[in-house]
Amino acid sequence: MKKQFAVIGLGRFGGSICRTLSKQGMEVMAIDMDEDRIDEYASIASHAVICDSTDEKALKSLGLRNFDHVIVAIGDNIQASILTTIMLKELGVDKITVKAQNDYHEKVLNKIGADKVVHPERDMGRRIAHHVVSNNVLDYLEISDEHSIVEVRASEKMVGSTLQELDIRAKYGINIVAFRRNGEIMVSPPAGADIQPDDIMIVIGADKDISRFEQHLINNEI
Amino acid sequence: MKKQFAVIGLGRFGGSICRTLSKQGMEVMAIDMDEDRIDEYASIASHAVICDSTDEKALKSLGLRNFDHVIVAIGDNIQASILTTIMLKELGVDKITVKAQNDYHEKVLNKIGADKVVHPERDMGRRIAHHVVSNNVLDYLEISDEHSIVEVRASEKMVGSTLQELDIRAKYGINIVAFRRNGEIMVSPPAGADIQPDDIMIVIGADKDISRFEQHLINNEI
Ligand SMILES: Nc1ncnc2c1ncn2[C@@H]1O[C@H](COP(=O)(O)OP(=O)(O)OP(=O)(O)O)[C@@H](O)[C@H]1O
Ligand SMILES: Nc1ncnc2c1ncn2[C@@H]1O[C@H](COP(=O)(O)OP(=O)(O)OP(=O)(O)O)[C@@H](O)[C@H]1O
Ligand SMILES: [Ca+2]
Ligand SMILES: [Ca+2]
Ligand SMILES: [Ca+2]
Ligand SMILES: [Ca+2]
Repeated sequence: MKKQFAVIGLGRFGGSICRTLSKQGMEVMAIDMDEDRIDEYASIASHAVICDSTDEKALKSLGLRNFDHVIVAIGDNIQASILTTIMLKELGVDKITVKAQNDYHEKVLNKIGADKVVHPERDMGRRIAHHVVSNNVLDYLEISDEHSIVEVRASEKMVGSTLQELDIRAKYGINIVAFRRNGEIMVSPPAGADIQPDDIMIVIGADKDISRFEQHLINNEI
Repeated sequence: MKKQFAVIGLGRFGGSICRTLSKQGMEVMAIDMDEDRIDEYASIASHAVICDSTDEKALKSLGLRNFDHVIVAIGDNIQASILTTIMLKELGVDKITVKAQNDYHEKVLNKIGADKVVHPERDMGRRIAHHVVSNNVLDYLEISDEHSIVEVRASEKMVGSTLQELDIRAKYGINIVAFRRNGEIMVSPPAGADIQPDDIMIVIGADKDISRFEQHLINNEI
């Protein structure tokens, strides 16, 4: 059977989840207390329902008990977010993901049994910070507390050299996982591959090693 | 010389950028019209200044002209965000990154010369949607329109098998870049490595191949 999702709160964050799930062909119930939002999502989600999720009777009537995953994306009204989560828990919803506004909110959500707590603005702030420090760093993924994968634009200095000549692995202790060139991806590029203008390197390694590599790029040392 | 950054608007998004840049040892001026916010960031940023950025005289007095990158993280007040961006442009700030609330806002920001426009909530919504579709998918990074890197939790069925036995590369056309086990990262794991409970695999490949892999994980086929 198809998995069933519900998103409560159709702000920018919840709305984006709803759109993405719908695009992937998932069953999504879109829920908001604001009629205009429901009008907007009626043509996007499988169902769009006006409901104040803090109203126990109204919430119960939605039949969310049988849903696989409910996402609570109410932001500013922390009390409504917490109350909604508690009631979803009581209904026996299998998985509940909740957006938190701050650390206090997160702590409460974890205590009352939210399965996953997310901080979209905070996490995106961290990502953007990496990007602004170096114009060469396009994107990154934290893969552990101390390791990341980053997309780095090759410097002009690198162009024409082969990976072997640059010897990034020996010099920085980081690995080039793939290359992006004209939208195409080359996984595990051979040591003889030479860098072309606008090549994007996808590297994996310890944060401190990647930082050193980025710093050398910023300073035009490589 | 050290790069100089300024962040205008210390909400969750702007605040997170400010913290991350400061942690990386960067010079950051934190700017907000709210005194409480400034008190909070006084001990985090290099400088923290109370200023309504729509007040031309006040903005000019900050000397932002010589800064390398200014991030405008004013959200709800779209008019203030646009006006601030226009004035920063006129001051001759080198790079300006601005948070947009919606597509209209983005269009205006691009027109008036913002160098980068970001949609933190929307982008994070897309990421989270990937995560909720499959509980095994922990995080992902789009590396081209058709390729991604994803963090996938190994299934119970996989535990005890070696990478060679699973032969994921031949079966799905995707590559295992690394493993995370107890917070440690193993880059390019050998074919003889066997999967342990709670291992996280970091795989790279075409989205359609990764989807097929995820689908098989969801269906307990691997
Ligand atoms: N009790 C509730 N029941 C249903 N919907 C609600 C409830 N409270 C808030 N919402 C809806 O949640 C949505 C998000 O609201 P909020 O004001 O918290 O946005 P936000 O924090 O700015 O979110 P974002 O940053 O994702 O744009 C709104 O569309 C609002 O109508
Ligand atoms: N004209 C201005 N000058 C300086 N600071 C401003 C101005 N307008 C708003 N701010 C500040 O910007 C910060 C972000 O405000 P906003 O209400 O837009 O947050 P938000 O959209 O909820 O942000 P986030 O989603 O990142 O938490 C606030 O601390 C606010 O005081
Ligand atoms: Ca808000
Ligand atoms: Ca927000
Ligand atoms: Ca991660
Ligand atoms: Ca990317």
